[in-house]
Amino acid sequence: MRPSGRAPDQMRVITIQPNYTVHAEGSCLIGFGDTKVLVTASIEEKTPPWLRGKGQGWVTAEYGMLPRATHTRGSREAAKGKQSGRTQEIQRLIGRSLRAVVDLPALGERQITLDCDVIQADGGTRTASISGAWVALRLAVDRLIADGKLTADPIREKVAAISCGIYEGAPVLDLDYIEDSNAHADANFVLIGDGKIAEVQATAEGATYDEEALLRLLRLARIGCAEIFATQDKATGR
Amino acid sequence: MRPSGRAPDQMRVITIQPNYTVHAEGSCLIGFGDTKVLVTASIEEKTPPWLRGKGQGWVTAEYGMLPRATHTRGSREAAKGKQSGRTQEIQRLIGRSLRAVVDLPALGERQITLDCDVIQADGGTRTASISGAWVALRLAVDRLIADGKLTADPIREKVAAISCGIYEGAPVLDLDYIEDSNAHADANFVLIGDGKIAEVQATAEGATYDEEALLRLLRLARIGCAEIFATQDKATGR
Amino acid sequence: MRPSGRAPDQMRVITIQPNYTVHAEGSCLIGFGDTKVLVTASIEEKTPPWLRGKGQGWVTAEYGMLPRATHTRGSREAAKGKQSGRTQEIQRLIGRSLRAVVDLPALGERQITLDCDVIQADGGTRTASISGAWVALRLAVDRLIADGKLTADPIREKVAAISCGIYEGAPVLDLDYIEDSNAHADANFVLIGDGKIAEVQATAEGATYDEEALLRLLRLARIGCAEIFATQDKATGR
Amino acid sequence: MRPSGRAPDQMRVITIQPNYTVHAEGSCLIGFGDTKVLVTASIEEKTPPWLRGKGQGWVTAEYGMLPRATHTRGSREAAKGKQSGRTQEIQRLIGRSLRAVVDLPALGERQITLDCDVIQADGGTRTASISGAWVALRLAVDRLIADGKLTADPIREKVAAISCGIYEGAPVLDLDYIEDSNAHADANFVLIGDGKIAEVQATAEGATYDEEALLRLLRLARIGCAEIFATQDKATGR
Amino acid sequence: MRPSGRAPDQMRVITIQPNYTVHAEGSCLIGFGDTKVLVTASIEEKTPPWLRGKGQGWVTAEYGMLPRATHTRGSREAAKGKQSGRTQEIQRLIGRSLRAVVDLPALGERQITLDCDVIQADGGTRTASISGAWVALRLAVDRLIADGKLTADPIREKVAAISCGIYEGAPVLDLDYIEDSNAHADANFVLIGDGKIAEVQATAEGATYDEEALLRLLRLARIGCAEIFATQDKATGR
Amino acid sequence: MRPSGRAPDQMRVITIQPNYTVHAEGSCLIGFGDTKVLVTASIEEKTPPWLRGKGQGWVTAEYGMLPRATHTRGSREAAKGKQSGRTQEIQRLIGRSLRAVVDLPALGERQITLDCDVIQADGGTRTASISGAWVALRLAVDRLIADGKLTADPIREKVAAISCGIYEGAPVLDLDYIEDSNAHADANFVLIGDGKIAEVQATAEGATYDEEALLRLLRLARIGCAEIFATQDKATGR
Repeated sequence: MRPSGRAPDQMRVITIQPNYTVHAEGSCLIGFGDTKVLVTASIEEKTPPWLRGKGQGWVTAEYGMLPRATHTRGSREAAKGKQSGRTQEIQRLIGRSLRAVVDLPALGERQITLDCDVIQADGGTRTASISGAWVALRLAVDRLIADGKLTADPIREKVAAISCGIYEGAPVLDLDYIEDSNAHADANFVLIGDGKIAEVQATAEGATYDEEALLRLLRLARIGCAEIFATQDKATGR
Repeated sequence: MRPSGRAPDQMRVITIQPNYTVHAEGSCLIGFGDTKVLVTASIEEKTPPWLRGKGQGWVTAEYGMLPRATHTRGSREAAKGKQSGRTQEIQRLIGRSLRAVVDLPALGERQITLDCDVIQADGGTRTASISGAWVALRLAVDRLIADGKLTADPIREKVAAISCGIYEGAPVLDLDYIEDSNAHADANFVLIGDGKIAEVQATAEGATYDEEALLRLLRLARIGCAEIFATQDKATGR
Repeated sequence: MRPSGRAPDQMRVITIQPNYTVHAEGSCLIGFGDTKVLVTASIEEKTPPWLRGKGQGWVTAEYGMLPRATHTRGSREAAKGKQSGRTQEIQRLIGRSLRAVVDLPALGERQITLDCDVIQADGGTRTASISGAWVALRLAVDRLIADGKLTADPIREKVAAISCGIYEGAPVLDLDYIEDSNAHADANFVLIGDGKIAEVQATAEGATYDEEALLRLLRLARIGCAEIFATQDKATGR
Repeated sequence: MRPSGRAPDQMRVITIQPNYTVHAEGSCLIGFGDTKVLVTASIEEKTPPWLRGKGQGWVTAEYGMLPRATHTRGSREAAKGKQSGRTQEIQRLIGRSLRAVVDLPALGERQITLDCDVIQADGGTRTASISGAWVALRLAVDRLIADGKLTADPIREKVAAISCGIYEGAPVLDLDYIEDSNAHADANFVLIGDGKIAEVQATAEGATYDEEALLRLLRLARIGCAEIFATQDKATGR
Repeated sequence: MRPSGRAPDQMRVITIQPNYTVHAEGSCLIGFGDTKVLVTASIEEKTPPWLRGKGQGWVTAEYGMLPRATHTRGSREAAKGKQSGRTQEIQRLIGRSLRAVVDLPALGERQITLDCDVIQADGGTRTASISGAWVALRLAVDRLIADGKLTADPIREKVAAISCGIYEGAPVLDLDYIEDSNAHADANFVLIGDGKIAEVQATAEGATYDEEALLRLLRLARIGCAEIFATQDKATGR
Repeated sequence: MRPSGRAPDQMRVITIQPNYTVHAEGSCLIGFGDTKVLVTASIEEKTPPWLRGKGQGWVTAEYGMLPRATHTRGSREAAKGKQSGRTQEIQRLIGRSLRAVVDLPALGERQITLDCDVIQADGGTRTASISGAWVALRLAVDRLIADGKLTADPIREKVAAISCGIYEGAPVLDLDYIEDSNAHADANFVLIGDGKIAEVQATAEGATYDEEALLRLLRLARIGCAEIFATQDKATGR
């Protein structure tokens, strides 16, 4: 029995409010239940120094959590003077996941930065960030196309992410904070619209797991991502 | 003529959504037109080291701006590894303004931290932060009273803040970004519910100003703060 | 009764030793009683990157306090690895105050940096810094004119600053450390030679204040700045 | 055809020199071909502050790369003043992998730190680090047992790690630098002596992958870890 | 011929103004020609954590240079966020030199910090700092004795320092900036009142040197330190 | 009697393994008894910004100690976010010592960086670093000559370094850790192949020393460096 009363393969309510802010080229507020992440896509008409003149664009991400997004207040990374290892690991994952579906040469010599800021946290902030980042990116690229700055669409596919885990011995989909804190294994899957996989990160916590468990978690992830893909479509008017 | 078409003494629409987040003891989303600030109040049942055992509480604030709260993306302070001078100046002002209306010994040996994070910026983020921080603080203290942790109310008064300036030669109330960027003088007033003043910061930009101008700006600020006080009352159920 | 025995509108002894150091283009040691600040003006024949090619110069300031300038030793900011919020707030104020009287295009594409280092502190270090910085700037610009690098004088006016406050219920001029630590309101005024105002920062400490008090403090500031202006004139040979 | 001429399921030569340094409680120099990592285990008879008094021990890891471990010199992290996101990600992975096989309460209130320093790099530094860290940990725990400080063995199982990837369309085992730089998918597997899995991190690079590919990589990893387990046994005299 | 016209064994004018600041327990402004260093001694009635309860005191030093102490402005270390290697090397040398003449157990469980801040630089700032630090320390310890906090004098001897070098082929005493920039060898000697040596740092610059040269420089240093010892005596009333 | 049983003028066993790593242009593992330092020389075909276009090359050094090189684990400088004063002092000394024997204009506009990483420490790490750095530099320059990038040899002489000290009243050569921790004076000598001196750093620890002692230590250093020079010759095939 899950604390929330959900079925093992039941997602929390997924919500995506597109164009949430006025300044960003693309943005959304994505909710996985009580987890709320504000994602903005910012286009800059130049690439980072190490890519200059290579005839391709770049997509990168930054991640942050507001100090009181969590049950008890965490310290502000800007005040501490550095980003935690966890923050850096997450923002590297987000950027990599998005680049998996973007044709960088087709993007042209520009950079799109996805800022994922967690307004409220209840588990799954990195997977909500990836799923929302795709929407913000999609909207920003749509604008580049509408403005005539791009003629071909550099986004090859949709990308979404979800966490699954072994909770009280059973594989469950879309862990909330209570489940996440007590799961024996915790896996994040980044899946592509065509059924392929962009990333699997499956970690034992307390108990190790076997190949069968890995495959059952992957199957749950497919269920969850199908739902996210549908919500992404609606949010981006597809 | 103001770019927004407002009258010289006309505020933007002020909105306050109380209890905006689920974890914080007090919170609100405050809007001054397109400026949106999320404020949370976090109670910790101990004071900072330098106050331990002094029989009083503390109220402090931190301020941040999401990288794409602005027209063009700014760099993330956590990634740069330090808070700008501007950020530190603003968070010191917010904390000081709130402490001006709190009886710290009556608060008991606890600390309340007001986190003010700018979701979207269009001028006046520091005054919106102060005005919203009062609401989050009020809600957090109400909870302490409701929980029986406080018997007397340590908040003596309301506090609100507004910016005024000399724009194209005329004193105007509640500067938006375009006005702020072009004003010849820019003043932030922190006013108390009883008509007293907690802070005046009036800065010449390009042209210096005289005593008469200072007083006219103060009078505009009184008009603006009256409106904010009313909105604060509604948001906190008073 | 003030701890020093001074009358409410009585300044401490103001001293300015011009050309205090041999290397700087302009310099002075300014004393407001026991508060001693060494100010140097350094001319660099280029502007900061964000101003390049804009046909104007820049004036900026840095502020520091020697570790044992105060009653008990403070930690060295260079050793701690960062400047405090207070330091940054003060150096921003100094720079802004000086720029209020300089015609930046007339200065040409060069930068003048005012370094204000507090040798000994007894209250009023930021106002002494501003008042001394004007002298160092004046001397440095005089040298540019003497060297034929400038034909027109880019300094439009004198600028001076003084603190006033409500101490034991009475408005007093030029707070020393004991008064500053116990004042109910603390205001710093940056005034211009022509009677105009460059900056007002008036902060309630413990008790809030009203409009009448603000005006009385401003009147005291005018008395103090008149005396500083006269001392500046003598120090710069005017 | 692999650049090294190896068969798809062929490892590089694995070497482990136990007790490589004189001061550490456990240590080894592990080589995966030209990749050489020096690992030391340091025992401290206290736990980190957040674990004090909880009746359990802790195992953690730090990772570093000598500036010229690589083809071209990289900058020294100590000189830059911070560890890269990559470094932090790797050291978190190493610590987590080792903790997956340690009974922390049985370790007692002590901390063991595994320092993994890459002397020479040719791909696979994180998997060599994990595999070598187990040896250093084993040797350090053996010493605790020999010294009578532990009566029961807190290490439940062996742990080893290996990278696999899709190179020129074919799944291959134990990527060297050239393969790693050109692989279409890159997966790190952390496996347990009993056949279970501690961690899977499988990342698409350029091309996404499917479930079948994931399973084929896992099977290769089992081949590689079997060889590492045997080498670990020899190095630790089992 | 030396640029200043001095004889090879001729010092610049040495000046020491004792009790230069009002707050420090001991202080002086020391001048070696145009080099001016303000030194303060601050007594703290506790030792650093690693010395607690060891029944001895500690003497340490910090060193800084005002940004415009030099011919062209250097950047402020507090603003850059770290002390240079040169600064750290110098402050370690100053602390070590002073500790060479202090009986630390006799000092009791207290720490004395010598802050050496260079107001104006013309070569020899580290040797002026050491020589002035002894005066500030002496005055601070005299106060401890006068206050009855110490009964026995923990200072065993005087200490002074001077630089010598090979300039245009000839050994010369007390290098100024021009000589220092062009010397073929540069040596700093820290000598004790009884004729013993606390530290020699002799560095080849461009040309290496031989044993005979080292001894000739040491002999010059003895001449210079004799003069400094006499000036120290006068400044401390001995 | 020395703890190791060595005669006063007896070195530990000196070993140098040239070409210890595969990527660096020059490298060696140098051992002074249990002290082991890995040194690599990295050639970059450009000079640091402040030397650009000056028609000369540069030689610089960086130094680090693995956390468990020592008896008890030290914290990792990369994790602490800064290099200690000791580290900076040592790396400045290494660079300076090597530059003393290199004709920088003859090196051409390239930089050679010597990375000295202490694998295991038992006293004398800085002198082993200098002695090993010369070997790595020699091998790297030999390669430049072999590749036809240099026609004349820019290395004028050999350089080696050794520590000596007064231990239990007697001058001894090549201090190990136990001696170093208890020596009354500790001197590092950097000597040149032709008998000249590049650097002397002789520090009193506890007891000051006299001129005679300094000379006796220098004589011991000559004995030690002769042995190092011979080992360097063998390692570099001379």
